[in-house]
Amino acid sequence: MSHSQYVLTLSCPDRPGIVNAVTGHLFENGGNILESQQYNDLETDRFFMRTVFAQSEANASPNGLFSGMETLAQRFDMHWTLRDRSQRRRVMLLASKFDHCLADLLYRWRIGELQMDITGIVANHPRETYRHIDLGDVPFHHLPVAKHDKAAQEAQLLALIEQTGTELVVLARYMQVLSAPLVERLAGRCINIHHSFLPGFKGARPYHHAHARGVKLIGATAHFVTADLDEGPIIEQDTQRVSHHDTPADLIRIGRDIERRVLAQALRCYLDDRILLNGQRTVVFAV
Amino acid sequence: MSHSQYVLTLSCPDRPGIVNAVTGHLFENGGNILESQQYNDLETDRFFMRTVFAQSEANASPNGLFSGMETLAQRFDMHWTLRDRSQRRRVMLLASKFDHCLADLLYRWRIGELQMDITGIVANHPRETYRHIDLGDVPFHHLPVAKHDKAAQEAQLLALIEQTGTELVVLARYMQVLSAPLVERLAGRCINIHHSFLPGFKGARPYHHAHARGVKLIGATAHFVTADLDEGPIIEQDTQRVSHHDTPADLIRIGRDIERRVLAQALRCYLDDRILLNGQRTVVFAV
Amino acid sequence: MSHSQYVLTLSCPDRPGIVNAVTGHLFENGGNILESQQYNDLETDRFFMRTVFAQSEANASPNGLFSGMETLAQRFDMHWTLRDRSQRRRVMLLASKFDHCLADLLYRWRIGELQMDITGIVANHPRETYRHIDLGDVPFHHLPVAKHDKAAQEAQLLALIEQTGTELVVLARYMQVLSAPLVERLAGRCINIHHSFLPGFKGARPYHHAHARGVKLIGATAHFVTADLDEGPIIEQDTQRVSHHDTPADLIRIGRDIERRVLAQALRCYLDDRILLNGQRTVVFAV
Amino acid sequence: MSHSQYVLTLSCPDRPGIVNAVTGHLFENGGNILESQQYNDLETDRFFMRTVFAQSEANASPNGLFSGMETLAQRFDMHWTLRDRSQRRRVMLLASKFDHCLADLLYRWRIGELQMDITGIVANHPRETYRHIDLGDVPFHHLPVAKHDKAAQEAQLLALIEQTGTELVVLARYMQVLSAPLVERLAGRCINIHHSFLPGFKGARPYHHAHARGVKLIGATAHFVTADLDEGPIIEQDTQRVSHHDTPADLIRIGRDIERRVLAQALRCYLDDRILLNGQRTVVFAV
Repeated sequence: MSHSQYVLTLSCPDRPGIVNAVTGHLFENGGNILESQQYNDLETDRFFMRTVFAQSEANASPNGLFSGMETLAQRFDMHWTLRDRSQRRRVMLLASKFDHCLADLLYRWRIGELQMDITGIVANHPRETYRHIDLGDVPFHHLPVAKHDKAAQEAQLLALIEQTGTELVVLARYMQVLSAPLVERLAGRCINIHHSFLPGFKGARPYHHAHARGVKLIGATAHFVTADLDEGPIIEQDTQRVSHHDTPADLIRIGRDIERRVLAQALRCYLDDRILLNGQRTVVFAV
Repeated sequence: MSHSQYVLTLSCPDRPGIVNAVTGHLFENGGNILESQQYNDLETDRFFMRTVFAQSEANASPNGLFSGMETLAQRFDMHWTLRDRSQRRRVMLLASKFDHCLADLLYRWRIGELQMDITGIVANHPRETYRHIDLGDVPFHHLPVAKHDKAAQEAQLLALIEQTGTELVVLARYMQVLSAPLVERLAGRCINIHHSFLPGFKGARPYHHAHARGVKLIGATAHFVTADLDEGPIIEQDTQRVSHHDTPADLIRIGRDIERRVLAQALRCYLDDRILLNGQRTVVFAV
Repeated sequence: MSHSQYVLTLSCPDRPGIVNAVTGHLFENGGNILESQQYNDLETDRFFMRTVFAQSEANASPNGLFSGMETLAQRFDMHWTLRDRSQRRRVMLLASKFDHCLADLLYRWRIGELQMDITGIVANHPRETYRHIDLGDVPFHHLPVAKHDKAAQEAQLLALIEQTGTELVVLARYMQVLSAPLVERLAGRCINIHHSFLPGFKGARPYHHAHARGVKLIGATAHFVTADLDEGPIIEQDTQRVSHHDTPADLIRIGRDIERRVLAQALRCYLDDRILLNGQRTVVFAV
Repeated sequence: MSHSQYVLTLSCPDRPGIVNAVTGHLFENGGNILESQQYNDLETDRFFMRTVFAQSEANASPNGLFSGMETLAQRFDMHWTLRDRSQRRRVMLLASKFDHCLADLLYRWRIGELQMDITGIVANHPRETYRHIDLGDVPFHHLPVAKHDKAAQEAQLLALIEQTGTELVVLARYMQVLSAPLVERLAGRCINIHHSFLPGFKGARPYHHAHARGVKLIGATAHFVTADLDEGPIIEQDTQRVSHHDTPADLIRIGRDIERRVLAQALRCYLDDRILLNGQRTVVFAV
């Protein structure tokens, strides 16, 4: 008898009985909890939960699972997601000239480290730019940005996102600022990697600013994209030691390593439903 | 209306319905879950859980909480602990000549970082050795180790542990090896800090061995003490970068910083009931 | 035959022959180089050097060493320092209510980790505040800050600095902003520990701001004090991982550990003449 | 007027006057020091030095530079290397089934992060194994290992190394143990990446052993290959935090990231002549 695995996430105003009601529902539907984390934000009095459970085939009734959750969600005013782990998230990758994050994500995906379906790669540079990377069968779209008509490109992009059923958009060092309406459409499902340890060195050329300031560590930040540039909810950050020897070019090189591991970690968390929004912040039920 | 907070930990063979039964019990007794973590070791098929919950005074019935858990424990074959968070753990500190861990733990305790009652300080060196540390009202016991009669000293130590109701013994760079019978008596409630990144450099003079081997990082390890020296379940470890410049004396200096933060972190986890034994390993539901 | 050890530091406009001239001077005066680091800032074309050398007693002529350096300094337009390592730097510690940095520095000093003479401890709180710390024979000065007469307190402080021959002032979580004239007087010899990873969260209550922003790492920064608040040359920084679980109080606790190790490391570097100023930045010839 | 840059490394028994003699030689030949590090191992009384200097074309006389160094080397009994930085090291990469290190090194090389000429890729698996990696024009050699005739394969390998003028051999997760005679031939110019934090978990399947032991950090080690397996001089190490959640498969995944950055860092240091052998240890004049 084999099993299906599900990941359930939810958040709601806190009150007694939530966990008991949820686990009761799972138990009645043949679910056995493999891993679970709960967190109560005492500041906002909001409750967050992520649960991984197995459902044996004998008892398998996805319908029951979903409909029961709907009832609970109404009762507790929940935001929730429930995903069969075998259904992989559909992800679109956006890139510009620097391809270290793109190459890294594709490598991790190919060897099975990132469980996702890539719906396409979109770049404002032509395919030739990435000729050293094996794009395989992944559809590639060159969407150049015209100087005075960014809107046209964004319309194409949005159409692609919708046609492909893309759930998550990853800005893998995509150097175009998305317009407010597009950001709004992608709220909570567009992740960017910023090449600084936010909130330090917002905006352009952060490594040059870091060098000028003489910091002893540099960093990178993966965050959800919001209309307020570089202010979106932070998912993951990391830093690395540098010294007076390091020129801006050295910082850029060192930064590539930080950027690609921070973005990959944020993406891994997303794909495994570990990230919940908590206002302007995130709850990350990390491994 | 004020609230009592409790921490519940349990482990048992895995089977469906555990979480639901436990949270049902808490709910019926007025408990509201603030934080919870569950983990299922698929290798051993053993289930681990730690839950923090508040019980409003109106519903307050510690008796009900405890007796109900007893029933559940029999049903699911559980190891469990349930502690009112306001009842602080009773901890004894053992030290030898090097006092950096002792001084650090006392400082953290004094400013409220470590919520515990210190039942006493035991050292095989006289009180004068620690004259620069404010021992305050904490009882100090000088128990020197006679060359051919270690057993006598250990008998005194054990008597102290029992008379004072000590729950946890911390070897804060206590340089005496405990006998097998004493270790047995303290199973699961005696923590040591070893000055190497185990399993590397077991035994004596690890920093000298690390220097001779030319490692580029050194570390420290907090672990439960078992009869098998330096082989007990690991609770916490950390490392720090060193270089060819560093002499053994430098490694000892750098190591002091690692040792004191690793031991303090392990102790914090213990005091907050975050450590569960899983055979020769630990489950640490860390913050 | 025993030896004296010296540390020489210098910086000057770059041009060929500097190292050869300096090492020739040392060689002629019986110096044997134990350790040396040189760095050429190609951006500013400025050259930096730190050399540790031993001088055998047979050849011992400190006068020759110093007078020869003076000649070289004129020739190459050098800033330089030359110190007999047995002459310890004279350091004054300033503290306010939070004493974790003060306690840590005193402990490290007592066990010989920080080779310095402490000329005094100055606090805007009374001695009673630090009753749990062994201040030993170190002179303690309570210099409270009157609401409308900060200048009077600073005059007292400056008098103390001068009377005691203090070379370095360490703000060990001293929560008073120094006036511009005082800062000017102490240029390059006053180190502060700021409880954030600068340039993020400048100013007051950085841990609260970090919490509100939802960062995933917090940090601390040791820097030279300048009139431009929190903008002085950075000496040392470090960061540590935090999570959504951590309240501002948790960040403050975690931050204490970062602050004390960053400040101690900066001070160690200073005491060993490892820090050279390079405009608004530092060259730190770290171990 | 453009400049050539050179890197000089040397080690010899310590005695006064070495640095002065060397820098005098450089000065006389028009060299201007850009960066220099010296270290005296007081334990072995051996002196180590690495210097980067520019020689203006007007004064350019590589011959003088080299012949003068030869004279100095005899006088001081030096091991030394002198390299025109524009002459890139010739490096051969060896790989087996797992290609994360190979892919990573090739990517870094392609974007200019690793300044080397790759003389070839040798694998005991067929080229098809690496079909997702762009090997470009780099010669690929499939040298399978016959069960009872390892010697034949090694003879082919050695022939390739010699024919191609390979200076450094990198075992990029090459899972074959080299024979003692081959190791001898490649002494000081063969680097391996071991997937554990040596000396912990020597030998095969280190991640499984790490999991069984319950360590809280795992690591990787880049070292020179010697006949004594996993005992060669360590060049670089790093560690990363893991938890009870992580299965051996998770450790393998996390380890890939550590392995590739540790190996790349070791290689970068080698290519920039930053690694000097000091008996069974290394002096690494790291940035």
